[in-house]
Amino acid sequence: MTQPAIYLDNNATTRVYPEAVAAMLPYFTEHYGNASSGHGFGAQAGVGLRKARIAVAGLIDATSEQEIIFTSGGTEANTTAIRSALAVQEGRREIVISAVEHPAVLMLAADLEKTEGITVHRIPVDTLGRLDRAAYAAALSDRVAVVSMLWANNETGTIFPVAQLAAEAHAVGALFHTDAVQVVGKLPISVQDTVIDMLSLSGHKFHGPKGAGALYLRKGVPFRPLFRGGKQERSRRAGTENVPSLVGMGVAAEITAARMEADLSRIATLRDWLEAGLLKLGGVMVLGDPAHRLANTCTVAFDRIDGEAVLTKLARLGIAVSTGSACASGAIEPSHVTRAMAVPFTSAHGVVRFSLSSETTAAEISRVLAVLPEILAELRPVPVADPVTA
Amino acid sequence: MTQPAIYLDNNATTRVYPEAVAAMLPYFTEHYGNASSGHGFGAQAGVGLRKARIAVAGLIDATSEQEIIFTSGGTEANTTAIRSALAVQEGRREIVISAVEHPAVLMLAADLEKTEGITVHRIPVDTLGRLDRAAYAAALSDRVAVVSMLWANNETGTIFPVAQLAAEAHAVGALFHTDAVQVVGKLPISVQDTVIDMLSLSGHKFHGPKGAGALYLRKGVPFRPLFRGGKQERSRRAGTENVPSLVGMGVAAEITAARMEADLSRIATLRDWLEAGLLKLGGVMVLGDPAHRLANTCTVAFDRIDGEAVLTKLARLGIAVSTGSACASGAIEPSHVTRAMAVPFTSAHGVVRFSLSSETTAAEISRVLAVLPEILAELRPVPVADPVTA
Ligand SMILES: Cc1ncc(COP(=O)(O)O)c(C=O)c1O
Ligand SMILES: Cc1ncc(COP(=O)(O)O)c(C=O)c1O
Repeated sequence: MTQPAIYLDNNATTRVYPEAVAAMLPYFTEHYGNASSGHGFGAQAGVGLRKARIAVAGLIDATSEQEIIFTSGGTEANTTAIRSALAVQEGRREIVISAVEHPAVLMLAADLEKTEGITVHRIPVDTLGRLDRAAYAAALSDRVAVVSMLWANNETGTIFPVAQLAAEAHAVGALFHTDAVQVVGKLPISVQDTVIDMLSLSGHKFHGPKGAGALYLRKGVPFRPLFRGGKQERSRRAGTENVPSLVGMGVAAEITAARMEADLSRIATLRDWLEAGLLKLGGVMVLGDPAHRLANTCTVAFDRIDGEAVLTKLARLGIAVSTGSACASGAIEPSHVTRAMAVPFTSAHGVVRFSLSSETTAAEISRVLAVLPEILAELRPVPVADPVTA
Repeated sequence: MTQPAIYLDNNATTRVYPEAVAAMLPYFTEHYGNASSGHGFGAQAGVGLRKARIAVAGLIDATSEQEIIFTSGGTEANTTAIRSALAVQEGRREIVISAVEHPAVLMLAADLEKTEGITVHRIPVDTLGRLDRAAYAAALSDRVAVVSMLWANNETGTIFPVAQLAAEAHAVGALFHTDAVQVVGKLPISVQDTVIDMLSLSGHKFHGPKGAGALYLRKGVPFRPLFRGGKQERSRRAGTENVPSLVGMGVAAEITAARMEADLSRIATLRDWLEAGLLKLGGVMVLGDPAHRLANTCTVAFDRIDGEAVLTKLARLGIAVSTGSACASGAIEPSHVTRAMAVPFTSAHGVVRFSLSSETTAAEISRVLAVLPEILAELRPVPVADPVTA
């Protein structure tokens, strides 16, 4: 009998909640109008969008749904935020990011450095993935247009203290953007409790569909659109709205908000159980900051074992994990996060990320723990035989 | 008995083919992996994407599916193309567009003019919406980085001779981009028969879902991505792929390609019937180039009647039309296209666009023609009574 597949790669993407899919369906073939159109078909689409906007605003506790600009995902939101912040503050030509940002931010920053002469400060992290606060303070000045910092790291789940970081950025007059793609839906957050100016989120990370995301833009924060044209999103993001996907993200946001507390404690329990089991295997170190970490993420480094080989063997058993960020998959080098955290050489290639969701079951964790010992035994190099006793 | 709704606003957006929706469904809740992931869930998503890419390449007769870069829609494709062309040719600081481009191009050009000092040549059109070829030739020089021209106009359906325009652009070493959002699926086209370097398309204009589009990038044409980060789309467009919507666009592309010939002749027949009926009403002029026009579009200007009022009255009867581009809806001014074509003053506010699709029926056209006379009679100002004979 084949085992059902086990999906532990929820930081890469999640299964869409069936309720979200059901809510989307009428928007493909019935309420399929363009929300900008002046007739009934357009009005129906507009109603769906409005509801989704309120739900997404609620999930991050925005003051008003007008602070939500819908985008095609996290990468677009990040790109829009950082480019906008530079454009609206022409006198400021520096940006501050962490060394462990998602490639969407890291590579944009490198591009701005190379093609537009922007100075980029990359703040290092320690071995637990914690930001070097002294280096951060030193990088801040009135030359900085924007600070962009992950709220939680996609590879390790380590949470940055963005509320404080934002306050420090404001002290020098810089805007503050956070890539919260991994945090929204996995941690109760309130932008109102912070001075964060802009926040990126992506629906497919919390059981919404791919292709739907948002940029939170605090009321009053100056902004320049990346896409010009139609008046969609109050002229802040042109292009026919992806109504069905945005409606789906809205429903996922509603479900997530309603269930968050219960889900998170259940997920944390399963994760801790998984982690304890992994540690018992020996030759395993857990990555990230144990005191500030997403409840769903367990990233470990296996000593003297290739993470890709673990992934492949698990995949053959129908178990989906990641060797780090999905985007880095296939690359042979340890990820930039692993390197920034100075993971010991013998473990640097052995990083495997298990990321859980509200749909993960105890039976699934139990099976993963049952199959791992044999996989590791097969992969771990046989100790060299002692020529004398052989 | 209420009449079923009649949708004649297919240039704004279309109903998604049920077959496309059906093909999308498994990608939400079964094959929901991230196409970049190294396990089975990721592989399933990758297979879906590949099939979609081949279908879209087929619809425009690209040489290879690798020339297709998936985007979130037409606006993103247009923005990416024009910004890329400027970035890869730093010595060239001029662009050439028509005066009747979609706002996505017009407003991007205005932005580049204002914020980056780019010189924009806006080529006028005549009263039939035809490009002023002499003005175009005069604007071309070795200072031009890129020409961006609509293949067909969204408001009038007028088709530009892009194959020739592209050849002329190449003669001065400029890149050529075409916004083919209204043409793809409405005209059999072959990029191989042209020297066009880049082409934008959007799935929701040919019965695919919103939020899925593509930029065709001819092999060998230099390119700079707008979104950096993950290696998606061969590092040309970072961001988790919107797998379900792209799969839906692929199926819509397949269906469209297979049915195009039959559909277009049927649509043209219905459109010509509608147009003849409209002309019989009197005080009506047809906009656009009768010799080079999309088969599905019938845009008219009613003399001394407000187009918005016609739209509203039709909408009350469940009939959806547009007063021009959906994006301009709600604006009180005649659209930029109407103005560029110098539509006579008494008709400039009376523009109404009827845009048909493969799903339009003869019964629908018949009903529209049946209700219009009364609507126009209500709206047309009563002739001032002659005081002598009164
Ligand atoms: C932290 C982080 N930022 C940004 C992104 C990019 O989001 P998207 O794939 O929706 O563009 C991701 C996911 O891939 C992520 O984990
Ligand atoms: C000619 C033309 N170009 C571009 C667009 C924008 O495409 P999208 O709405 O998919 O971004 C449209 C449709 O609104 C269009 O008609």
